[in-house]
Amino acid sequence: MIQTDICIIGAGPVGLFAVFEAGLLKMRCHLIDALPEVGGQLSEIYPQKPIYDIPGAPGIIAGDLVKNLMIQIEEFKPGFTLGERVEVISKQDDGSYIVSTNEDIHVHCQVVVIAAGLGSFEPRKPAVENLEYFEGKGVHYIVKRPELFRDKRVVLAGGGDSALDWTIFLAGVAEKVTLVHRGETFRGAPDSGSKVFELAESGKIDLVLQSQVSALAGNGVLKEVSLLDNNKITRTIQADHFIPLFGLSPKLGPIADWNLGIDKSAVVVDTLDYATNVERIYAIGDINTYPGKLKLILCGFHEAAIMMQSAFKYVYPDQKLSFKYTTVNGVNPF
Amino acid sequence: MIQTDICIIGAGPVGLFAVFEAGLLKMRCHLIDALPEVGGQLSEIYPQKPIYDIPGAPGIIAGDLVKNLMIQIEEFKPGFTLGERVEVISKQDDGSYIVSTNEDIHVHCQVVVIAAGLGSFEPRKPAVENLEYFEGKGVHYIVKRPELFRDKRVVLAGGGDSALDWTIFLAGVAEKVTLVHRGETFRGAPDSGSKVFELAESGKIDLVLQSQVSALAGNGVLKEVSLLDNNKITRTIQADHFIPLFGLSPKLGPIADWNLGIDKSAVVVDTLDYATNVERIYAIGDINTYPGKLKLILCGFHEAAIMMQSAFKYVYPDQKLSFKYTTVNGVNPF
Repeated sequence: MIQTDICIIGAGPVGLFAVFEAGLLKMRCHLIDALPEVGGQLSEIYPQKPIYDIPGAPGIIAGDLVKNLMIQIEEFKPGFTLGERVEVISKQDDGSYIVSTNEDIHVHCQVVVIAAGLGSFEPRKPAVENLEYFEGKGVHYIVKRPELFRDKRVVLAGGGDSALDWTIFLAGVAEKVTLVHRGETFRGAPDSGSKVFELAESGKIDLVLQSQVSALAGNGVLKEVSLLDNNKITRTIQADHFIPLFGLSPKLGPIADWNLGIDKSAVVVDTLDYATNVERIYAIGDINTYPGKLKLILCGFHEAAIMMQSAFKYVYPDQKLSFKYTTVNGVNPF
Repeated sequence: MIQTDICIIGAGPVGLFAVFEAGLLKMRCHLIDALPEVGGQLSEIYPQKPIYDIPGAPGIIAGDLVKNLMIQIEEFKPGFTLGERVEVISKQDDGSYIVSTNEDIHVHCQVVVIAAGLGSFEPRKPAVENLEYFEGKGVHYIVKRPELFRDKRVVLAGGGDSALDWTIFLAGVAEKVTLVHRGETFRGAPDSGSKVFELAESGKIDLVLQSQVSALAGNGVLKEVSLLDNNKITRTIQADHFIPLFGLSPKLGPIADWNLGIDKSAVVVDTLDYATNVERIYAIGDINTYPGKLKLILCGFHEAAIMMQSAFKYVYPDQKLSFKYTTVNGVNPF
């Protein structure tokens, strides 16, 4: 049994920063994440993309933000259980909780913080013959390392921002980029749509509209992609990689069973302290909702700071919280 | 008359970052600050001190945070009126405002954002003979550039964190440091108090307790400081600088006359959007208050992001706000 003050479910940027705010109040944290590494979406979906709206860190690369957060919390020595999914939380007689994972790790804590981002999100998969067979053999639902596609023939599918963005980006990396889209216009940002049309006109990419990918073929690895147009005519093109980008479908997972107030796949919290309707359970970051909620990392940072002040009373019931500025007091490590 | 969408009163870190969040929504900003440079307290009070709790930027020097924020907002081309104090805001028939400074600069805007930090704060001045005469000639109420004190004889007065911190810091910079304190124990952090006692015991500073500075003397510049102890005995020591650190006394200034809800020198806002009780006037950062308020820069960043979403309806009454992630869409400059 792991003993800690605060168990944080989710080791994305907001969960990581929560460790810092807890540490300032002398509360220890243990983090659990289903992903094998820290950073959440930043590490899993766009580690090499810049983020523009982190205050004071314009254009920071997502992976670097995660690194900086790990440096920031290092002296508070958080514990990590990675690559395991939280399955059950059980309330103890004294009000504390035991949080248990699918691999039978148990964490005893006074307070549970859900910082699970989009939850256990899964890519939306289009109906394409042999799609799942070629997963890991040429089929990718997210672009984690663009370098993988250097000098390769890549087919992307989709009409949203993700498909447009990666088409534009990979046009400068891959040998050949083909974007396949069911419609004639794009759902994504008008600017990005215009850029994709320009790239197609100047011959830098192949744009195949009013069509969809219908089947994949290959010999152990992907070799061919079949395209079906609106007139039911099929043609086949050579490809090393197929990247269908139809978004991620968020799934709350076991959190849905914890009697928490839920609204549209998000956990309802009170903005006073980002507490849920269940005592000692808080929710911060993209997983929570309240009137006016913005799913921004910087908002999750604020929620973490406020939330830890509220959690203090469960960890130190006999102490009065005395709030100190780090600029005055520095940071006192554990 | 300067025309803008949003007039921000206060160019501290939160006011600066508000420009970025406004810019993402295509709203232009003009900032007014009574100080001659941007950055608020960060530039004025502790430009060279590290800040530990800026998420993702552990230990960033306050002045560097200001620089980074200026880089972040550069492409949204904010206007600045610095070194002038806002005196009057007057509501126009169409709901817009004209904000006027003490030097007759007028800014016409749709929305007013008060990001004035502690307001126009003033140092608390102790009753010391000739104190004001020696201002700028050896008397300082804040330590802006510690290098000024290198190899000088410095007398500090006070018993709070600021007096303790600067005594510890200047012990390694100045030729001689004397700390004068009325009491026998300190109000500041116990750690800092212990350090000061250690420095005194090892002879690295002079600690004069149960005493106060009573008079200053010199010939154009400060030369001597008189100390009066509890037995009414006066002695005089040589000194180049005297730094009384008895805190800053916040003053709301003209903001107090704008019919805003005020609670303990702070402007009351609704956490839904950080609006005040007066339509089109918002308050963000240290100047506002609400249940659970923490006076942290990172909280002001969140408030700025949320607030600008709400202000959009006054700047673009006919448009629907469409929220885009910068990671997907980048930043489109003006």
